[in-house]
Amino acid sequence: MLQHTDEIARLIQSHEEGFALPRGFYTSAEIYDRDIETYWNRSWLWVGHVSQIPEPGDYFLFDYGPESIIVVRDRDGEVRAHLNVCRHRGSRVCVEPEGNARLFVCPYHAWTFELSGKLRSGRAMGKDFDPGQYGLFPAHVIVFQGLILVCTADTPPPIQDGLRKLAPLCEPFGLENLKIAHKQVYPVPANWKLALENYLECYHCAPSHQEYAKSHTLKAPQDMEKLVEPLQRRSEGIGLPTVTLDQTGPNAPDLAADVYYRRYPLYEGYQTGSRDGTPLAPLLGSLSGFDGGATDVQLGPLNNFLIYSDHAVGYRFVPRGLQETDIEVLWLVRADAEEPKDYSTPDLTWLWHVTSLDDERIIRHNQEGVNSYHFRPGPLADMEWGINGFYETYLKMIRV
Amino acid sequence: MLQHTDEIARLIQSHEEGFALPRGFYTSAEIYDRDIETYWNRSWLWVGHVSQIPEPGDYFLFDYGPESIIVVRDRDGEVRAHLNVCRHRGSRVCVEPEGNARLFVCPYHAWTFELSGKLRSGRAMGKDFDPGQYGLFPAHVIVFQGLILVCTADTPPPIQDGLRKLAPLCEPFGLENLKIAHKQVYPVPANWKLALENYLECYHCAPSHQEYAKSHTLKAPQDMEKLVEPLQRRSEGIGLPTVTLDQTGPNAPDLAADVYYRRYPLYEGYQTGSRDGTPLAPLLGSLSGFDGGATDVQLGPLNNFLIYSDHAVGYRFVPRGLQETDIEVLWLVRADAEEPKDYSTPDLTWLWHVTSLDDERIIRHNQEGVNSYHFRPGPLADMEWGINGFYETYLKMIRV
Amino acid sequence: MLQHTDEIARLIQSHEEGFALPRGFYTSAEIYDRDIETYWNRSWLWVGHVSQIPEPGDYFLFDYGPESIIVVRDRDGEVRAHLNVCRHRGSRVCVEPEGNARLFVCPYHAWTFELSGKLRSGRAMGKDFDPGQYGLFPAHVIVFQGLILVCTADTPPPIQDGLRKLAPLCEPFGLENLKIAHKQVYPVPANWKLALENYLECYHCAPSHQEYAKSHTLKAPQDMEKLVEPLQRRSEGIGLPTVTLDQTGPNAPDLAADVYYRRYPLYEGYQTGSRDGTPLAPLLGSLSGFDGGATDVQLGPLNNFLIYSDHAVGYRFVPRGLQETDIEVLWLVRADAEEPKDYSTPDLTWLWHVTSLDDERIIRHNQEGVNSYHFRPGPLADMEWGINGFYETYLKMIRV
Repeated sequence: MLQHTDEIARLIQSHEEGFALPRGFYTSAEIYDRDIETYWNRSWLWVGHVSQIPEPGDYFLFDYGPESIIVVRDRDGEVRAHLNVCRHRGSRVCVEPEGNARLFVCPYHAWTFELSGKLRSGRAMGKDFDPGQYGLFPAHVIVFQGLILVCTADTPPPIQDGLRKLAPLCEPFGLENLKIAHKQVYPVPANWKLALENYLECYHCAPSHQEYAKSHTLKAPQDMEKLVEPLQRRSEGIGLPTVTLDQTGPNAPDLAADVYYRRYPLYEGYQTGSRDGTPLAPLLGSLSGFDGGATDVQLGPLNNFLIYSDHAVGYRFVPRGLQETDIEVLWLVRADAEEPKDYSTPDLTWLWHVTSLDDERIIRHNQEGVNSYHFRPGPLADMEWGINGFYETYLKMIRV
Repeated sequence: MLQHTDEIARLIQSHEEGFALPRGFYTSAEIYDRDIETYWNRSWLWVGHVSQIPEPGDYFLFDYGPESIIVVRDRDGEVRAHLNVCRHRGSRVCVEPEGNARLFVCPYHAWTFELSGKLRSGRAMGKDFDPGQYGLFPAHVIVFQGLILVCTADTPPPIQDGLRKLAPLCEPFGLENLKIAHKQVYPVPANWKLALENYLECYHCAPSHQEYAKSHTLKAPQDMEKLVEPLQRRSEGIGLPTVTLDQTGPNAPDLAADVYYRRYPLYEGYQTGSRDGTPLAPLLGSLSGFDGGATDVQLGPLNNFLIYSDHAVGYRFVPRGLQETDIEVLWLVRADAEEPKDYSTPDLTWLWHVTSLDDERIIRHNQEGVNSYHFRPGPLADMEWGINGFYETYLKMIRV
Repeated sequence: MLQHTDEIARLIQSHEEGFALPRGFYTSAEIYDRDIETYWNRSWLWVGHVSQIPEPGDYFLFDYGPESIIVVRDRDGEVRAHLNVCRHRGSRVCVEPEGNARLFVCPYHAWTFELSGKLRSGRAMGKDFDPGQYGLFPAHVIVFQGLILVCTADTPPPIQDGLRKLAPLCEPFGLENLKIAHKQVYPVPANWKLALENYLECYHCAPSHQEYAKSHTLKAPQDMEKLVEPLQRRSEGIGLPTVTLDQTGPNAPDLAADVYYRRYPLYEGYQTGSRDGTPLAPLLGSLSGFDGGATDVQLGPLNNFLIYSDHAVGYRFVPRGLQETDIEVLWLVRADAEEPKDYSTPDLTWLWHVTSLDDERIIRHNQEGVNSYHFRPGPLADMEWGINGFYETYLKMIRV
């Protein structure tokens, strides 16, 4: 754990509720290290979908900051996660980003680990050596309807209760039967928190996202209000629950155990997040039609999804350095959808591609301004409530 | 304000008067941050010339370190400067380096500022929100004979008195009627102080600047001495005062309120800073001829000018990082001079282009050597008196 | 000397004997600075061979971290070393990596130093200036059988006694009569200690170095054992001593005064470190034939050599930044060997080229894994005894 906590304590104290975070949160190397160690390494992270590793031995790596996690389907068909750090002298055990393995053999001294993480043998380590003490460190795993969540902490945030409540709401989308149609990375020279905050509020949507703002009412609460009731009738018609589940920020049962579900209306004429409003892919799960809505889902503060009737989009804001972040966007469609018959990748990805390009630009300019010694955090708008919730959890977790 | 002042205090104490600064001043990230916060952000900075923004709404940005300033001519024709940092969540408000604007609309959430910096509206901020509290932070502005100086401190160095004394001396050059003929940037991997120190002494001119040393007597005090009196007679003849004004370092009335004026002789045969000594552009201001001299002018420690009879050259050493500095050189000629009739850019810029290339090289090697743990500051030569003056002011300002 | 020693002390304390070093030793900028200041700047460094500077005035630079050393043969034919830092304002005095000089003239202000380091003149420094006080700082020099060792500390590690013992063992190789046939640099994004540790153990040789492992028994103690006695008979036959000299780690007479000599067997059929086992170059020194052995030599912990019967290879792991290291490999053959008649560079360098490419890869993956906050140092194998010895010295030296 980091020792120099004076600066951290001073920074935390300098934050005024209802206002943006002060400069140091986005410019201090010490804060960045602490973010990884106390926030990211103790949060649930959405790393991928079960469809990426259908067979025993299938694996992929998920990297963030200085960390690397092996996500693997073991011999028994269970999804497991291990820290990708050899227990001998620390080498990465697995260096290919994905593949199929029978064993993980460290490329340095050939320590050999089973898919379960167990150390099979420590070559030439002498007779006093107990391999049982040197298995790969495990990470916790939850598979929520096909979405794989991982947490490297000893005691992860107790999100299970929230997920149980979320389960029937998401059920109709058949998330476990999706596949990743496309993944794109938008690197932005900014701290990861600015990228996440950008996602957590739609106050910027009207001025910044011309295309999104045409179809999504989230950008205008007054517009949305009138369209909610008609949407609810339509949602019921296609088999979707109409309740909102908000266990985020102050409503969360525990630190970083946030879950969120809300379906909100698109503007008239839009069946999904497409350029002209027409469908992009086959209907998800058990849905019987298009209701002209979109669902915001959050599984822990770091993992966000937007689910239309015919596809889902997942968003991650992965730290690579103090002011280096990868905005990762993943588009998911039904597993049995085939391109080009059932969908077209350029059409499917159009909206969130142009929107993410916008976001990269505005997040970058945000960081540039925040770097100024003259920056003073201003008041958050009502529409930025999601940021307040994030700050509350975040500040508690890094305080330790 | 920075908190970890132990290292700063120790460093300041380790400096011995009459000697170069110790290693840490050029290698410590903490010192660099402090330099920006306590020295640059409290000094007058020469950002440009009024000819760059003739019309209301015309603006340009001046960036240094992590800072960005909007310099704009407002509706009333006044030159103003604002911190380029939105008062909401800190985005850069203005992202184009220059242009003409009616309003500054923040690209993130569309907070809209008038040219005066006043916040016109904070969209959807609720009724308790007082836009009057959230205008852009202003920077102080002085326009000295067309040269725009800006300072972001609450209380800038009191330079006005010095400028009043300087005014009649500069008057004949007609500085307000110049235009920027050319600007060139020479990035050097060195701390900004090494770049500035290099400009502040001509002890290095003889060995390092073959071309400059051929024409400028500043490199050889013994040569200059003999030529001063004849120059003074010639200066009087063309309408130039012959006094020297030295309010720098210990002679400055206040911290960083330095001003300086001295005309010194070129070698025989040189009318201006050209390759062969012949004129480069139409005579400046009210001058009636060439006196074979050049004037060193300083407006605060950071802003240096060399004024020949037919053109002026401005120098800035803009910090971009701990060991990244842009040497910015700007060549100015009469506003009514036309190329190619009245001047040729390659000829005009020849001397200070080759000289700046030399400087980039020697400053780079200086930084490389100073990075050594074995570096011990040596004694300054008499010809390096300007560096002593800079140190005195600098050390007081960062001490805070 | 660095002041913030709390982190250093805490890190040193966190190391458990017999285990790898903790994360901070490879990730902390403070440790890196300390490594240079207290370890590298107080260790003997192998900088080159006398054949590089045969004539008076011949010189080359040796750079590491922020340091630069001039190694020069003076007017009297002595090899000398000077810190490449001007005693005035710290510029590098010498900027060409090698050449012949009569004097070293600082490129900044022309302070002029003799080959002995003496300041000849401080131009225009006034009459109170004593040039005798401002010669280049000297570095200590030892020439051991043509290999030039340099140390920048006031009091270098007392290695002379060890070298005296080593001298008769190395004598038959005629090291003073070698020349550098080839030098290659393999940059690796890792801390220098990981690169050195990699060299100090052959536990990784079997899994990581297919080519090396085919010919060198060092990778398998049980194989080596059986071949030692036959080798000793052959070594005696060609005129080589068969003793082992191990004054490293706990056996060293003083801190960083380590020396090491051991000849070990190649596998049958290998006369030298070549692809097919056949000779690569003329026999070294006074050797009368090939004994099928190779000698590990260490001159201080940082300087490693592998001497075959017909060529020698030198290895250095030069820090360039916290996680930037140059693996430098130099191949040496008899001075009178001529290419292509007597040797072929591609053949000569084949083994250690492919082996160094392997090393670059595994050291890189080691650093990636060690960067994880989840890395916990594991136990060292018996075959990693050399690392234990290095740690012991290293931890004492940085403790200061």
